[in-house]
Order: sequence, then C-alpha cells, then structure tokens
Amino acid sequence: MIITLTTDFGLGTYVASMKGVILEIDPEAKVVDIDHSVAPQDIRQGAYAMYSATPWFPFAVHIGVVDPGVGTERRGIVIACEGAMFVGPDNGLLIPAADMFGIKEVRHITNKGYTLRRASYVFHGRDIFAPVAAHLSKGVKLREIGPEIKDYVKLDFGTPAVDESGIRGEVLTIDRFGNIVTNIPRRIVSERWRFNQDLEVSIGGYDIRLRLLRTYGEASEDGLLATMSSSNFLEIAKRNGSAASLVNAKPRMPVAVRPAT
Amino acid sequence: MIITLTTDFGLGTYVASMKGVILEIDPEAKVVDIDHSVAPQDIRQGAYAMYSATPWFPFAVHIGVVDPGVGTERRGIVIACEGAMFVGPDNGLLIPAADMFGIKEVRHITNKGYTLRRASYVFHGRDIFAPVAAHLSKGVKLREIGPEIKDYVKLDFGTPAVDESGIRGEVLTIDRFGNIVTNIPRRIVSERWRFNQDLEVSIGGYDIRLRLLRTYGEASEDGLLATMSSSNFLEIAKRNGSAASLVNAKPRMPVAVRPAT
Amino acid sequence: MIITLTTDFGLGTYVASMKGVILEIDPEAKVVDIDHSVAPQDIRQGAYAMYSATPWFPFAVHIGVVDPGVGTERRGIVIACEGAMFVGPDNGLLIPAADMFGIKEVRHITNKGYTLRRASYVFHGRDIFAPVAAHLSKGVKLREIGPEIKDYVKLDFGTPAVDESGIRGEVLTIDRFGNIVTNIPRRIVSERWRFNQDLEVSIGGYDIRLRLLRTYGEASEDGLLATMSSSNFLEIAKRNGSAASLVNAKPRMPVAVRPAT
Repeated sequence: MIITLTTDFGLGTYVASMKGVILEIDPEAKVVDIDHSVAPQDIRQGAYAMYSATPWFPFAVHIGVVDPGVGTERRGIVIACEGAMFVGPDNGLLIPAADMFGIKEVRHITNKGYTLRRASYVFHGRDIFAPVAAHLSKGVKLREIGPEIKDYVKLDFGTPAVDESGIRGEVLTIDRFGNIVTNIPRRIVSERWRFNQDLEVSIGGYDIRLRLLRTYGEASEDGLLATMSSSNFLEIAKRNGSAASLVNAKPRMPVAVRPAT
Repeated sequence: MIITLTTDFGLGTYVASMKGVILEIDPEAKVVDIDHSVAPQDIRQGAYAMYSATPWFPFAVHIGVVDPGVGTERRGIVIACEGAMFVGPDNGLLIPAADMFGIKEVRHITNKGYTLRRASYVFHGRDIFAPVAAHLSKGVKLREIGPEIKDYVKLDFGTPAVDESGIRGEVLTIDRFGNIVTNIPRRIVSERWRFNQDLEVSIGGYDIRLRLLRTYGEASEDGLLATMSSSNFLEIAKRNGSAASLVNAKPRMPVAVRPAT
Repeated sequence: MIITLTTDFGLGTYVASMKGVILEIDPEAKVVDIDHSVAPQDIRQGAYAMYSATPWFPFAVHIGVVDPGVGTERRGIVIACEGAMFVGPDNGLLIPAADMFGIKEVRHITNKGYTLRRASYVFHGRDIFAPVAAHLSKGVKLREIGPEIKDYVKLDFGTPAVDESGIRGEVLTIDRFGNIVTNIPRRIVSERWRFNQDLEVSIGGYDIRLRLLRTYGEASEDGLLATMSSSNFLEIAKRNGSAASLVNAKPRMPVAVRPAT
C-alpha cells in the first residue's frame, strides 16, 4: 500500500529513519514524500500541505508529523476516512485533509504492540506513527490500534466573511513561485465574479487592481493577476515573478477582495 | 515502468500531487525525481537537468515541467525516442535530452481521454502531463495521444565559437559545489588540449590561469582547475570550494578559454 | 533489495543519475534517500547522517558519497557487516555506521566488471559506487568485488572526557530545528544524572543553566533544555526555537556539561 509522509523535518535522516522503520515492517509499502519543508512546528502549513496533495492519491495511509507537543500528554491518533487513513499527532494537523475525505472514525493510539518497543520521547514520527502506519498498510484492523475518541483537536482554514462590499479572508500559504494562496474557496468567488473581471485586493497595506484570469500567461508581462489555485482557492500571482515579495505577504495576513470600481 | 520528474516546483505538494495521479493510473509505476530545484521558469536550466540525468536511466517516460506558458495556447507534447519517451510543454524544455536519444516522433497531446477530466489552467503537470505519462507507462499507444507535429519548439545549449586563439562559449549551469559547467563539449577540448596543460580562462571580468586536470583532488589545496564535467562539458572548479562565487558566475555568462602563454 | 543514498550532492541530477544507473542494473532495487544535504565535502557530517539513519533499515546496501578525493589514489571500498553492506570512498565516511553494525570484512573495489565501462574521474558515485551496490543487491559475491584490506581509514566521533567536574565533548551536528546534538552518548549521561536535574552547559562562550528533560514540550515556553536526541546523544534544544542560533553553535565546537550548583 502507499504510505505518504508530510513533516517539518526537512528531507534528511529523520525522514529516512521513518522510511526504514516502515520498510522493516512492510517491505511492500510504497513510500511517497508529500512535503518535508513545512516551517518548523507550523501545524497550519502542514495541514494545508496534506489537504492539497492527499486527494490526488489512490487509497493510502497518510502520515503527518508537525508535532511541537511530542512526548507530552498530546495523543497520537489514526483517522479512518472514505478512501484514506491518516496517522499523526492529535493537534489538528490531519483534520482539514481528513475532513475533505470525510471522517468515519478516530482512534487513540494506545496499543504498544504496533509501535517501536522503546519509543523515544522526542521522535514519535519514527517510533510510533511510522510503525502504526506500516501495520495498518499490512492489514492490521483499526480497532486494534486503540479506543475510539470523539474529542480530537479540530482545525480549519477559517471561513471568509462575505458581504455586499466583497470578501474578507486571509493568506493560507505562499508557494515557491511567490503565488499567494488565500483561504477564499473557488465556489465563493465563482458565485460572484467572472473570469476577465477586474478586482481590487487589499493586502499588507497595499490596494491592488488586478484581473481575475484563468492562468498566469494571460496577464501582461510581469503583471499581477488573480486566479484559481490548483487547490481551488483564490490566488494572487505575478506573471514571471513573486506576488508575495511585492506585498510582503505572510501566512494569516488579512486579504480583502471586491469588484474594481 | 520508470517515470521521472523534472520541475521547477521544489519538492513538495505540487510534485506529490503528480505522483499521486501517476500511481492512481499506474500503481506499478516507479517514480524517480530528477530535479525539482530548477530556478522558477528557467527552461534552459530544466533542459540541462533532463539532458544530464536521463541518459543514465533504462527505458523510462521522462516528464518535464518548467512551464511559464501553462494554460495558454502553448501545446503539450510527447516525444518518442530510441530508449526513452518525454512528456511536457512544447517550449524547448524536452529537446536537448530528446535530441541526445534521437527524436523519432513528436505528438501534440489532444486526446482528453488520457488527461484528468477537469484540467486546471494553472497546473498541467498534475492534470495533463502526469496522467499522459502514466497511460504511456501502462502501454497506451503513442498515436492515441494526438496528431504528429513537426513544428515543435527547438532548443540547444549553443555552439561555442572556435578559432585559432581559443574557444568562446558560455556558462551552462552551476552546481551545488559552485562548479561552473560551460557549454563547451569535451570533444572540442580534447581535440585541442591535453590534461595537465595550462589554460587561460576569461569569465565575469576575470582572467584566470589554471590547469586542465582529470579531477579536483589533483589541484593544489583550494586551487582553481579546469576539468571535464560528469556530463562531458568543460568545467571550471575550485578544489574544496566554489569557483562560481569567486568570479560571480551566472548562467549564460560568456566564457573564453585559450592556452596559457 | 533496499539501496540507500547519502551524499553531499543536494537532491538533483547527480543523485538521479545514480538512481538511473542502479535501476538499469537492478530493476527490482528499492532506492531510498537518506540525506543529500550534507555540507559539501564534510565527511564527518555525512558519517553522522549514515550513523543515525541506517540502523532503522532492514538489510540494505548503503551508499555514501562525500568524496573530496574522487579520482585520486583514494580507494573505493565495500564493507560487509551484520545486517548491512556499505559502499563508498575509503575516507572514513562509512565507518561510524559500519562500526555500529559490526564490521566483518572490508574489500577494495578493483573489479572493473562491476563498474561503468568508462568511469569518469569526477563522479565515482555514479560510475563506481552505484553500479557496485546494484550488483551486490543482485547477489554478486563480496569476494568478486576486490581483495580484502585491513588498513582502511578509520573515523569516530571522539570520546568525551569525563571527570569529577563533569563531561567535556563537542558538537556533533545541528539539525533543522537548531537542536545541538553533542557527541556525548546517552549512556555516559544516564550513569551520572537524572531527568529533571539542572545542568550547566558551557558552549560558544556562553554558560547556560538548563534542565535535563525527557522532551521539548516539558520546557517552559521558549525555554532551553537538555534532552536525549533520537540517536541517543545529549542534545541542547530550545522549545519552539533554535538553540544553535542562540549560542552560534557550529560542528566541533567544545561543549562542557556539569551539574548546576
């Protein structure tokens, strides 16, 4: 079975150790990296990485490890969904992705038969989440992992405020090209505005007039544009450049969008 | 079958989504990353990455995505070669690698039966190139993909000028060690000069005297040298250091080489 | 069989070429990256990467390439251990990991039947170590590779000095979170001190008082702590931050630890 990994470890020995543990338990597992460049301990960014990549996979066990509370009382969990399972800390990291698939059941990892014998206090990715995922991949039943819980930590990307004047949301993430992905879903945008319409965007103290376009190449050379991100959120971009550095955008920065007058 | 990926996405969710799409269509595919650190939209650098790594693979489908024109009229193509297939945008990216294998046939991707149903305008790597490659890997016939074209966009790394005084080429790429790889092929060098011969190199306003050596360790401690890169181009290097930062080398910077007097 | 890769190449075309060569020889090989972000030519850091990740793998051939002497007289070697094989340059890189597994036999790579036909002088990772590892993975006998040697280059992480006043060691490595991993083994610490005991650490000109804790989350918000790294060395960390940047820690910097008074 496919097992994916999303962490804030950077690609290196921590991730490799997890892969070794997985392959020891399930030599047939196909391990795929989703993202290891999540900013250290930025649960929200890790949640977005899992949210945007996991829907493109066939059935898989998705491990997430962005885990400032490792070794403390925070629980480890497994979430069973339609078409996917998620394994990681109970801090919200797994929730936006799992919610999109549809959460069927959440289990608290308590059965030490499926974790490494002497789990460290500092690296549950290797000692708990990797072996649990590998055992699930091999067919261990969910109920073997531990008791069902209902009070797991929730997380969402916020709901933009919509009124007659426009939409107010925030920056969700910034990609490698400097494209600013907002938390404003495509649906809200397309109910109101059409491609090729001009919009006004307030962000980081700037008021910018730009056009809602299908793709970057439709903008004027080096021009700003709004478009729909590949994860179906409103995105502010600059053709052949970084919109984020232009307005010094940061995650959680407020973004207001309205029709240009 | 092996499917390789070369992009300017950075390793992260964009690349992971492509892998998910591939594995959904062809669970047996072996996906291998070639390079995702290509500078954003630097087609030439991406072309060099594919050119230098693909010859070392057994038969494979090589996907390249450095794609400033995504979603515009630029075409998507498949190139069939002896020993390899290439999938990506029709902007020259695939050409140097494909030329080295020997191009047999180029097809314009038009058959929507082999792409994702609702292809986005901003991410053809995931929505078009990944699924087409996965279908080819599973055995779909090339002629199913779309019509043959002859007018695809060409790209090469330039032909160094050679005369009695020496060779004038340019910087092709700079590797992680700061080694400066030029576009001067080994063949041109070895017809003229021998290992252990002294050369004079003009680059970035500097005139440098150095020796043509077989390998870095033959230079004096921290000394400059010329050598043959692992892709068989003339390379300017510094033992245990970065030649590129010494002369502030950048891609496409002119390089002139002549025998030392 | 599993073949792992640890290099100072960065993830990109050099590593990809090695994977292509491996898959050409052994299409069944499962190639796993351990770490390619080793600082250029830092043999010690590469040795630590292999040391910390390889024990978590089932039987595998581990290739290491941090190789300032490539193309010179330095030898290429294969090390056979209980539960693992190692392939790489004879410069100490492979030794700490191999020592941990237990070295049974070291062979000098001399048989050109198992390397690429025209090995370059600058890239033995691709031309020698990758094909040798792939042939070993396919079942080629160790004695086919070349003669046994006893005078291979040794390397260890140093032995901390212990006396009544405390322990003096050095910085082994710094991870992505800025955690400072020392070369002081867990065993030496746990013979002397207990969790929740206060310690004084001298490093980089600073004298720091901190507590020996099981995990980061037990420290006060943004507080410093000592803990046991996931590789079982004493580690200086800062909760939700970088201890290394606080004291400007660098590899090999002296570290002295004693009970707080």
